[in-house]
Amino acid sequence: MKPGVRAQAGYTLRSPATGRKLNQNECPHDLPADLKQAVLERAAAAPWQRYPEFVPRQLAERLAAHYGWVPEGIVVGNGSNELIQATLSVVLGEGESVVAPSPTFSLYRLLTGVLGGRYVAAPLTPAFEFDVDRIVETAVRERARVVVLNSPNNPTGSALPEGAVERIVSETGALVLCDEAYQDFGGPTAIPLLRATSRVVVLRTFSKAMGMAGLRFGLALAHPEVAGELAKGKLPYNVNVVTLAAAGIALDHAAVFAARTRAVVETRERFLPRLARLPGIDVIPTWANFVLIRCHARPASDVFRRLYEDHGILVRDVSHNGELSQCLRITIGTEDDMEAVLVALRQILTSDTEAS
Amino acid sequence: MKPGVRAQAGYTLRSPATGRKLNQNECPHDLPADLKQAVLERAAAAPWQRYPEFVPRQLAERLAAHYGWVPEGIVVGNGSNELIQATLSVVLGEGESVVAPSPTFSLYRLLTGVLGGRYVAAPLTPAFEFDVDRIVETAVRERARVVVLNSPNNPTGSALPEGAVERIVSETGALVLCDEAYQDFGGPTAIPLLRATSRVVVLRTFSKAMGMAGLRFGLALAHPEVAGELAKGKLPYNVNVVTLAAAGIALDHAAVFAARTRAVVETRERFLPRLARLPGIDVIPTWANFVLIRCHARPASDVFRRLYEDHGILVRDVSHNGELSQCLRITIGTEDDMEAVLVALRQILTSDTEAS
Repeated sequence: MKPGVRAQAGYTLRSPATGRKLNQNECPHDLPADLKQAVLERAAAAPWQRYPEFVPRQLAERLAAHYGWVPEGIVVGNGSNELIQATLSVVLGEGESVVAPSPTFSLYRLLTGVLGGRYVAAPLTPAFEFDVDRIVETAVRERARVVVLNSPNNPTGSALPEGAVERIVSETGALVLCDEAYQDFGGPTAIPLLRATSRVVVLRTFSKAMGMAGLRFGLALAHPEVAGELAKGKLPYNVNVVTLAAAGIALDHAAVFAARTRAVVETRERFLPRLARLPGIDVIPTWANFVLIRCHARPASDVFRRLYEDHGILVRDVSHNGELSQCLRITIGTEDDMEAVLVALRQILTSDTEAS
Repeated sequence: MKPGVRAQAGYTLRSPATGRKLNQNECPHDLPADLKQAVLERAAAAPWQRYPEFVPRQLAERLAAHYGWVPEGIVVGNGSNELIQATLSVVLGEGESVVAPSPTFSLYRLLTGVLGGRYVAAPLTPAFEFDVDRIVETAVRERARVVVLNSPNNPTGSALPEGAVERIVSETGALVLCDEAYQDFGGPTAIPLLRATSRVVVLRTFSKAMGMAGLRFGLALAHPEVAGELAKGKLPYNVNVVTLAAAGIALDHAAVFAARTRAVVETRERFLPRLARLPGIDVIPTWANFVLIRCHARPASDVFRRLYEDHGILVRDVSHNGELSQCLRITIGTEDDMEAVLVALRQILTSDTEAS
């Protein structure tokens, strides 16, 4: 094994069964029953013993129309994770650097490590806002091959300011990988920049707003020539026939998903001010389908445990990460979920028992 | 882009619609209708908006029982291709070498190139048999980090001689990656060696004998400690919920697949001697669900084209590869398929028109 791989902890997640699962930023609803049925019927009609299409051209055309880009500039993946890996693997030479804000999605660091690259963090501001000056400085100093920007950023919810990607492209020599897994819920998109530069790659996923985390579908949008290179880093036949069918059917019903996304955003906007009025926590402004809170009255691990054990609510305890000390990340679920979170947090934060 | 990536052609395949599709070594039959229905019902019951299990423990236990290994030594993948990539990515440092026989499955070379490794071919004998002496010599000389052995070997059908893997493990310092995608159809397996050494990784797929190429499922079997390292090279949530369900149901009905595999082998054994009696071709001995032929009376590309255009039979033209000059690869399909291939080849090989 490469020493850098052996030294590194794998990505892992324990996810116990629970009543309210608010730990993975999933959509609160399964696919509408009629759409699920349509996917299953299309899946039933497909010959499963045959490999999927080598390039799903028709789907690429539909995706291009949906996102406002060209079919030749689209690469589909087994979740957008595969396209993070593909991009890094075709761009990054051993010892070359990847710059990304910190804290952010941990997979960027893990994949950089496996590929023998150097991962350099450019911290967010103390208020968890993107520090574009610092990203540019770090990328220039480290001669970054890739700058990874997750906006809205997991786990903070922060969105890039308008114009940030343009600036990073023009002031650095890096490929800017814009992971827009949560962009449906808010903040700017870099997709319009694709017409102006070949140094931007945008990733989108069907795991969040499209509610298909279990099926694994994502895509990269890039200049066609760059897309051709990225495709060399992904595996042939990477998206299975059921998922290809599901992605097509989801695009047929894009309005359904747009309405569900608006509902999540509305739930978030009703939830956040009420959350902010609770004692003993700070609420980080968010553009995503999750919110980060910082507990200052009692330990986050205690709040996490009591949410789960006493209220059946599973959130994500990210407080082990020094930068996220005392922080928990809560997915925006249904209205009912968020009501339950408010009731539970109020009880936990105002109770004297087990205070520490 | 890394120069090594840019210089390299991507993996690609055109697969036109056809009556008899004998170009991808697929199973001739879809999943039996009752099993397909069972998979669809299990899929319908799953919440698609949720991520798949992080580690599908129950499935790993079933796979372990099926293959005679331990659950902690099993890593599942989005097809075994993903596990080739995962293995190479965690083991291979930039400039380090991978040794594999030649000709073999082209993905090993492509992935090695993307990862910045050095790919060194150890040719098969002129009769397309594994040359174990040469593999050992090459691996020692090149200080190979990995030796990749595809047995039965795609596209030649050759099987490793008994004892070859043991010898390569003991006489080289390499990790020996045994890609047994076709082992259900014949030849030895390296699975028993897993108890004796941590330098063997065995890959299996559900795309061939299990007839699920469209669903993408494969697995790696390795020493548990090695499996833990390999898992760092694969993506989290790499196998979708439908495929996890399908793999479980396939294992419930392993006898169905075993019977189908025996039928393919019987078809092959009836087909090969009749094929060998045709004029103008040589038939390479095969242990797989495909057979390589070498055309010496007329150009392979001409035979390929006439099979397709005049007879609706699509085989794989591999003759562009110098080592496989004048060769075509034919998947073993149904009895009816093979009868049609014999009729068509006889007509093409004995006709005077378009002789060249």
